[in-house]
Amino acid sequence: MRKLLKKRSHKSGMLPGSLVHIGEVRKAESRTEVITYDRDSINKEQPDLEASCVLPLPEPAVTWVNVEGIGQLPLLKKLGDCFGLHPLVLEDIANTEQRPKAEEYDHYLFVVLKVLTPVATGVQCEQVSCILGVNWLLTFQEGLEGDPFGPVRERLQNGQGRLRSQGADFLAYSLMDVIVDNYFLVLEQVAESIEAIEEELMRTPSQRTLAEIYRLKRELLFIHKAIWPLREVVSSMLRRESPLVKEQTRIYLRDIYDHTVQVIETLETLRDMLSGMLDIYLSSVSNRLNGIMKVLTIIATIFMPLTFIAGLYGMNFKHMPELESPWGYPAVLLLMVAVTVGMLVFFRRKRWI
Amino acid sequence: MRKLLKKRSHKSGMLPGSLVHIGEVRKAESRTEVITYDRDSINKEQPDLEASCVLPLPEPAVTWVNVEGIGQLPLLKKLGDCFGLHPLVLEDIANTEQRPKAEEYDHYLFVVLKVLTPVATGVQCEQVSCILGVNWLLTFQEGLEGDPFGPVRERLQNGQGRLRSQGADFLAYSLMDVIVDNYFLVLEQVAESIEAIEEELMRTPSQRTLAEIYRLKRELLFIHKAIWPLREVVSSMLRRESPLVKEQTRIYLRDIYDHTVQVIETLETLRDMLSGMLDIYLSSVSNRLNGIMKVLTIIATIFMPLTFIAGLYGMNFKHMPELESPWGYPAVLLLMVAVTVGMLVFFRRKRWI
Amino acid sequence: MRKLLKKRSHKSGMLPGSLVHIGEVRKAESRTEVITYDRDSINKEQPDLEASCVLPLPEPAVTWVNVEGIGQLPLLKKLGDCFGLHPLVLEDIANTEQRPKAEEYDHYLFVVLKVLTPVATGVQCEQVSCILGVNWLLTFQEGLEGDPFGPVRERLQNGQGRLRSQGADFLAYSLMDVIVDNYFLVLEQVAESIEAIEEELMRTPSQRTLAEIYRLKRELLFIHKAIWPLREVVSSMLRRESPLVKEQTRIYLRDIYDHTVQVIETLETLRDMLSGMLDIYLSSVSNRLNGIMKVLTIIATIFMPLTFIAGLYGMNFKHMPELESPWGYPAVLLLMVAVTVGMLVFFRRKRWI
Amino acid sequence: MRKLLKKRSHKSGMLPGSLVHIGEVRKAESRTEVITYDRDSINKEQPDLEASCVLPLPEPAVTWVNVEGIGQLPLLKKLGDCFGLHPLVLEDIANTEQRPKAEEYDHYLFVVLKVLTPVATGVQCEQVSCILGVNWLLTFQEGLEGDPFGPVRERLQNGQGRLRSQGADFLAYSLMDVIVDNYFLVLEQVAESIEAIEEELMRTPSQRTLAEIYRLKRELLFIHKAIWPLREVVSSMLRRESPLVKEQTRIYLRDIYDHTVQVIETLETLRDMLSGMLDIYLSSVSNRLNGIMKVLTIIATIFMPLTFIAGLYGMNFKHMPELESPWGYPAVLLLMVAVTVGMLVFFRRKRWI
Amino acid sequence: MRKLLKKRSHKSGMLPGSLVHIGEVRKAESRTEVITYDRDSINKEQPDLEASCVLPLPEPAVTWVNVEGIGQLPLLKKLGDCFGLHPLVLEDIANTEQRPKAEEYDHYLFVVLKVLTPVATGVQCEQVSCILGVNWLLTFQEGLEGDPFGPVRERLQNGQGRLRSQGADFLAYSLMDVIVDNYFLVLEQVAESIEAIEEELMRTPSQRTLAEIYRLKRELLFIHKAIWPLREVVSSMLRRESPLVKEQTRIYLRDIYDHTVQVIETLETLRDMLSGMLDIYLSSVSNRLNGIMKVLTIIATIFMPLTFIAGLYGMNFKHMPELESPWGYPAVLLLMVAVTVGMLVFFRRKRWI
Repeated sequence: MRKLLKKRSHKSGMLPGSLVHIGEVRKAESRTEVITYDRDSINKEQPDLEASCVLPLPEPAVTWVNVEGIGQLPLLKKLGDCFGLHPLVLEDIANTEQRPKAEEYDHYLFVVLKVLTPVATGVQCEQVSCILGVNWLLTFQEGLEGDPFGPVRERLQNGQGRLRSQGADFLAYSLMDVIVDNYFLVLEQVAESIEAIEEELMRTPSQRTLAEIYRLKRELLFIHKAIWPLREVVSSMLRRESPLVKEQTRIYLRDIYDHTVQVIETLETLRDMLSGMLDIYLSSVSNRLNGIMKVLTIIATIFMPLTFIAGLYGMNFKHMPELESPWGYPAVLLLMVAVTVGMLVFFRRKRWI
Repeated sequence: MRKLLKKRSHKSGMLPGSLVHIGEVRKAESRTEVITYDRDSINKEQPDLEASCVLPLPEPAVTWVNVEGIGQLPLLKKLGDCFGLHPLVLEDIANTEQRPKAEEYDHYLFVVLKVLTPVATGVQCEQVSCILGVNWLLTFQEGLEGDPFGPVRERLQNGQGRLRSQGADFLAYSLMDVIVDNYFLVLEQVAESIEAIEEELMRTPSQRTLAEIYRLKRELLFIHKAIWPLREVVSSMLRRESPLVKEQTRIYLRDIYDHTVQVIETLETLRDMLSGMLDIYLSSVSNRLNGIMKVLTIIATIFMPLTFIAGLYGMNFKHMPELESPWGYPAVLLLMVAVTVGMLVFFRRKRWI
Repeated sequence: MRKLLKKRSHKSGMLPGSLVHIGEVRKAESRTEVITYDRDSINKEQPDLEASCVLPLPEPAVTWVNVEGIGQLPLLKKLGDCFGLHPLVLEDIANTEQRPKAEEYDHYLFVVLKVLTPVATGVQCEQVSCILGVNWLLTFQEGLEGDPFGPVRERLQNGQGRLRSQGADFLAYSLMDVIVDNYFLVLEQVAESIEAIEEELMRTPSQRTLAEIYRLKRELLFIHKAIWPLREVVSSMLRRESPLVKEQTRIYLRDIYDHTVQVIETLETLRDMLSGMLDIYLSSVSNRLNGIMKVLTIIATIFMPLTFIAGLYGMNFKHMPELESPWGYPAVLLLMVAVTVGMLVFFRRKRWI
Repeated sequence: MRKLLKKRSHKSGMLPGSLVHIGEVRKAESRTEVITYDRDSINKEQPDLEASCVLPLPEPAVTWVNVEGIGQLPLLKKLGDCFGLHPLVLEDIANTEQRPKAEEYDHYLFVVLKVLTPVATGVQCEQVSCILGVNWLLTFQEGLEGDPFGPVRERLQNGQGRLRSQGADFLAYSLMDVIVDNYFLVLEQVAESIEAIEEELMRTPSQRTLAEIYRLKRELLFIHKAIWPLREVVSSMLRRESPLVKEQTRIYLRDIYDHTVQVIETLETLRDMLSGMLDIYLSSVSNRLNGIMKVLTIIATIFMPLTFIAGLYGMNFKHMPELESPWGYPAVLLLMVAVTVGMLVFFRRKRWI
Repeated sequence: MRKLLKKRSHKSGMLPGSLVHIGEVRKAESRTEVITYDRDSINKEQPDLEASCVLPLPEPAVTWVNVEGIGQLPLLKKLGDCFGLHPLVLEDIANTEQRPKAEEYDHYLFVVLKVLTPVATGVQCEQVSCILGVNWLLTFQEGLEGDPFGPVRERLQNGQGRLRSQGADFLAYSLMDVIVDNYFLVLEQVAESIEAIEEELMRTPSQRTLAEIYRLKRELLFIHKAIWPLREVVSSMLRRESPLVKEQTRIYLRDIYDHTVQVIETLETLRDMLSGMLDIYLSSVSNRLNGIMKVLTIIATIFMPLTFIAGLYGMNFKHMPELESPWGYPAVLLLMVAVTVGMLVFFRRKRWI
C-alpha cells in the first residue's frame, strides 16, 4: 500500500533553500530535452544543460526545456543559475512532496502540479513543476513510466491547431489541460470500482467488501490531497493578472478552472457515496445477524420444550402412572405436536417465518 | 442504475476546443427550429442550418434557434461560425457532462443548465445550453422524450402575457423558469418516496427498505450535483450587470434565484431526513435483535434447568433413594413448577415480559 | 404527519407572475379589515376591497390593510392594481410555500415570514406577507385558527405605548416582533418534549422513544426551514438602509435580529441534543443486549455440562462400573456442585455477576 | 438537571421595550453599591437609587454602580431614566436569557456577558450586563452565591496596580478579564471529569459511563452556548473603535480576545474528545458482546455433541449391540474426549481461545 | 497520559499583566545566552541578565538573547524593563499554556509558537516565545531535553549560507523554519503508527487496536491544537507588512506559510484516516460476531433435533412398539443422518458454510 507520508527527516535542520531531494528517487539520471518553436518551425535538442546555459530565442519563438528525473541536483542548480531562479523554487522542485501551488516571482511564474495516472494497482502520482517566463517554459517531471505530455509534444510536432502560433503561456495551459483531463480518467476508474462494490453490497457483502471500501476511501483521500489545492492555484492565476499570462489565454484558464471544480465536485460525490456504502454495509451485517439469530431462536424454542418432555418421561421413578398407561406414549407425541404447532403460530405472528 | 460518471476517456489528450461529443448519444440526428417573433407576429421555420446561416432580424424582433440532438458536430461548427462563438463554447455544448455555469463573452452570454424530469424509474437528466445575444437566443437540447420548453413555445404562439413584447433576455428567463419549476416536480417525487419509506420504517423495516434508502440517497446526490451550481450561476448573472440582461428582466432573475435557493434548501432537508432514517433503521434493527434474543433467553433459561432435573432422575445408578419413594415423582414435578415460576418472576422484574 | 412538500405541480409551465394559489386552501373566503390611525384617533372598517381601492390618508396617519385568507385571487389582483404591486409579488403572496424573504421595490418593501404556533399535535405554520409603503402597510394571512396579531391590534386600540405615535414601519416591526416571540414558545414546547425523552432514555428506552426522537428531529427540520432564512431577511433590512425604515425603528430591528440569532442558536442546540440522544439510545440498546446475552450464557454454561453429566449416567451400557457403586450417585452430585461453583467463580472473575 | 430553556411565554405579545423579568428570580431584592474613585481616593456608598439619581463626578473620577438582583423592576426603570438608557437596553437587562452581545448607543456601550462558575453539581450560570459611559460604569448581576467581581473590588480598595489610575473602560475590561478567567476554571473541571471517564472507559465501561458522557455533552453544549458569542462580542468592540474605549485599553481587549479564542478552542477539543469516547464506548460494548458470545458458543459447541452421544446410548431400543459389548462404555468415553479435543483445536485455530 | 488542561486556577482573579508562571515548571533555573554577530564575526556570552541590561550593538550587527527555562520571573521582569516590553507580553511568556499568536507592538513583534518533538512515549511540546526588534531577537524556551535551535546555532557559528549576512528577521525566520520542519517529523511518527494499526486492523483487530486508535486520535487533537493557529500567525505576519520584516525575508515567510498549510492538510488526512479506521473496526467486530453466531447456530440447529430424537426413544413408556422392533435402532440412526444432511443443505443454501 502507498506510504502515507514520505520521509523528509534528513531535511530537518538544514538551511532553508538548501537543495535536497525528498521522496522516492524514481529515476536516478535526468533526461533533458529542449524544444524551440515558432509558427513555422520546430527544433528539438538534447544538450548537456549541466555544462552550459540554454539561451531562449527572441520572441515570438518559444523555448521549452523539459527535465525528466529530478534526482540530479547539480543540473537543477545550474538551471537555477541560468534562469535566475530563487533558491526556494529549486528547493520546492527537488521536494516531490510539495503541495500544488502557484507563486509569482519577478520575471517568472512558478507552478507545482500533481499528475495522476490510473495504473493497475490504483493511482500513480507524479509531481510536475512548471516555470513560465516571457517566452520560455521549464518543466520538471519525476520521470515515471508513461509520458503525460506526449499528446502535447505530438501536437507541437504536427503543427496542428493554435498551439504553435501562441506563446509560452498557451503551452503551459496545454500541459495543465492534459493533466486535468487525466484526473477524469482516474475518477472514472474509481467510479467503476465503486459501482462494482455497490453490486456486491446488495448481493453478498463480505469482509472483502469492507476492505475494498476502506481501500477506496484511502485512495480518495490521497487523490483529494493531490487535486484539492488546484482550485486555489488556478483561481489565483486568474485573479493575479500577471503580464506573463495573456488575455486570450485567460479564457482557457477559466475553462481549466471549471474542469477543476467539476473534478472536485465529482470527488466529493464519490466520497459521499463511499460513506453511504459503509453505513449500508453495517446495516446489512446487522440485518444478517438478525436472520441468523432468528433461525437459532426458532430451533431452540421448538426443540427445548420437546427435549424436556422426552426427558421427563425418561426419568426412572418407580411410581410414574403415565408410563404404565397404553395411551401414555401417543398422548405425549400429541402434546409434542401441539407444542410445535403453538410455537410456529407464535413465530408466524411475530413475522419471523 | 445510473452510471456514476460518463466516459470521457477518448477526449483525453485532444486539443482544447476540439469538438467531441461526450456522454451517451441520445438522438443521432439533430432537429432545428427557428422562431422569429415580435409583438405582432410570429414565424416558425425549419431551415437547413448546416447549409447557410440564419440572420437575426433587426430589433425589436427576436430570433430563437432551437437545436434538438447535439450529436451532429458539423451543424454545431457551422452555427459557431455564423454566430461567432468561441471554440470552448462549442466544446462545452457537445459535452453533456458539463457542469452548469454562466460565462460572459464579448457579445453573448453562455449558460449551461440541467433539465431534470421525473420519470417512472427515477429522474431523467438532460443538458440544455443557451447562448443569449442582443436579440437572438440559441438553445441546444439533448433531445429526450418530452419537451421541457413546450409551455413556453405555446405561450409564444398564443401571444399570451408579456412574452412576445419583451426581448430575447425575457425569453431566456422564461426557459430557465420552466426548468427550475421542473426541479420542484422532481423533489416532490422524491419526497413522496421518502414518506413511503417513513411509514415502512415505523411498521416493518426490511432489507428492501435499506436498499430503497440507499437508492434515494444516491438519487439525491445526483440531483444535488445537477442543481447545486445553479445558485452560483444565477447570482453571477445578477451581479455582473451585463447589458444583455435588461433591468426589468433582472427582477425576474431574482425570483429565479429565490426559487433556486428554495430548491436547494428542500434538497438539504430531504438529505437530512434520509440520514436520520438510516439511523432509525439501524436502531430498530438492533431493537428487534434484542427482542429475538429475549425470546431465546427466556426459553433457554426456563427449559435448561428443567431438562437437567429430568436428566438427573434419568440416571441409571443403582442406589438412588429418591427413585424408590412414591413421592419422588410429584416432588420433582413440584420442583419444576417452582423453578419455572421463579424464572418468570425474574424476567418480569427485568421487564422482559 | 405533516407533508414534506406541498404540491405545486399544477403551477409548472405557467406564465411567471401568473396568480395561482399553491398549498392547502385553509380559508376559502377572504376577510379584510382596514385600520387607519394617528396619535389621537383610530378607525376600523371592513370595506369591499374588491370593488374599490382604499386610499391611504396623508401622513402622519397610518393605514393598515389586513387580509385573512388568500385563496380569493381577484381580491389580490385588485389590491395589486390599487397599490401598484409587481406581478411577482402577488404570485409570491398566493404561494404559501414561499421561502421567507425581504425584497425592496421602488416604493415599497415586501417581506414574507412564517408564523409558527404551538398546537396540540405539534407546530402549526402560517405564512404572512407584509408590504410596507410610506405610511401604509398591507398584510396577508392564511387565516388559521388563532390570531397572531391580536396583541398588536389590542395595543393599537388602547393607544398604549409608542405604537400609535410612530409610522407604518414601527407597526411592521411590532408585527415581526410578535412573530419572533412566538418562535420561542414553539421551541419551549420542543424543549419540553426533549426533556421528557431524556428521562425516558435514562430509565426505560423503548421503540416508542425512538419514534419520538425521530418525530422531533423531523419537527426541528421543519422549524429550521421556516426560521433559518429570517436571519438573512432581517440583516438585509438592516443593511439596505431603505428610506421606508426610519433610523429610530432600526434600533428595534437590531433587537429582532438578536432574537433571531438566539432562536437559531437554540434550535441548533436542540438538534445537537437530539443527535446525542440517538447515540445514547443505540449505546444503551447494545448495552441491554449484552445484559440479555450474559443471562443466557450464564444459564447455558452452567446447565449444559450438568445435563451432559446426567446424560452420561443415563446411558444403558451393560458394563458401567460407576452405576453399581453405592457412592456413584453422591459422587456425581458432588461433581455437579463443583462444576457449578467453578462456573460461578469464572463469571465472578469476568465481572458478569 | 438544568432546564433546556427558561419560560418566557408570559412575555409573548407584550410591547417591545416593556420591562418583564425573564428567567428564575434568584434574588428578589436588589442590593446596590456605588463606588467612586480616582487615583488618590475611593468612596463606597449604598444610596437608595430608586429615590434619586447618582450623578457621576467629573473626570478623571470614575463612578461604578453595581446592582445585585435584577428582579426589582422599578429600580431598573429609575436607573434607565437617570442615565438615559434606551428601553430595549432595560428589557435586555431584565431578561436573564439574553444572548451575550455588545451594542453601541449614542453615549454608552452596552455589553451582556455570562459568568460561569464551577459548583459541586456542575456549572452555575449568571448573567452580567455592563453599561459603559465616559467615566461611569453600570453593572447588573443576578446576585447568586459567590461574587465574581470580588478580586476587582479588592484591587480597587488596595489601590494596587494600574486600576485606579485608569478610566472606566479599564474597569470594564478588568471585570471582563475576571469573567473570562473563570471560564478556564469551568473547563478545567470538565476536563477532569473527562479524564476520569477516560480511565473508566478503558477499564470497566458501564451504563453509568454512558450517562456521564451524555451529562458532560449536555454541559458542554450549555457552556458553548454561553461562551461562543463572546468572540464576536470582543472582536466587534475591537473593530468599532468607539471613543469610549481608549487606545491603551484596546491592547488589553486584544488579550481578552486571545483568551476567548483559546477558551473556545479548548471547548471544541473537549467536545471532540467526548464524541470520540462515545465511539470507543460503542466499540468496546460490541467487543464485550463478542467475548460473551464466544464463551457461549464454545460451551454449546462442546457440550451439545457430547450430550447427544450420551442421549444416543440412553435410548431404550431392545436391539442395540453396542450396549452389550464390554468395550462400549470406554469406547464412547474415548469418542467424547476426541470430540472435545477436536472442538478445542477448532477454536484455537479461530483464535477464540 | 498527557493532561488535557494545565491548571491555571491560581491565576484567576489576579491583576491582568501580573507575572505568574502557568504550567509545569520544567526547569527551575534559567540559562541565558547572548549571541552577537554580523557578516564577519560572532561572539557568545552568558552574562547575568538579571543584574544589568544587554545593549544591542548598532546595525547591521544582530543581537540574539536566548533564555532557557522561564520559571525565573525576576529575570523576565528585568528583560521586560530593558527592552521596553508590555506587561501583557511578559504575562504571555510566563504562561506555557499560551495559544500560538503573533502581535505587533510599537517597536517589536511578539510571536508565540509550539515546538513539537517526537519522543518515545509520543510527542513532547515546548512553548517558544520570540520578540523581534530592529536588530535584536529575544527567544524564550521552556528548556526541555534536546535543543530545537541547535542547527541554527551551528550554522551561525559556521557562517554558512546567508544567515550571518541578513538581519534579525531572517534569524527569526530560520528558527520558525526549524520548528515547522519538526512538525513533519512528528506527523511522520504518527503516520507510521497509523500504518501499523492499519495492518493490525485487517488481520487481527483486538481491544488493543481500539485503545491505540483512541490514543492516536487524542494525540492528533493535541497536535492540531498546537499547529492550527500557526496558519493564522504566519498569514497575519505576511499581511501586516511590518517594517521589522524586510521584503526579501517575506518570500521566505511565504514558504513557511506553504509548509504550514501542508502540515495542516496532512493532519486532516490523518484524522480522516483514523475516523475511517474506527468505522472499519466496528464493522469488522460486527462481522466477527456474525461468524461466531453462525457457528453457534449451526451446532445448535444440528444437535438439538438429534438430541430430541435420542431423548424420545429414551422415554420409559411401557408401550412403545418401535423399541421392540429390530429395525428401530438402525431406522433412528438413519433418520438422524437425514436430519443432519438436511440441515447442512439448508446452511449451504444460506451460504453459511
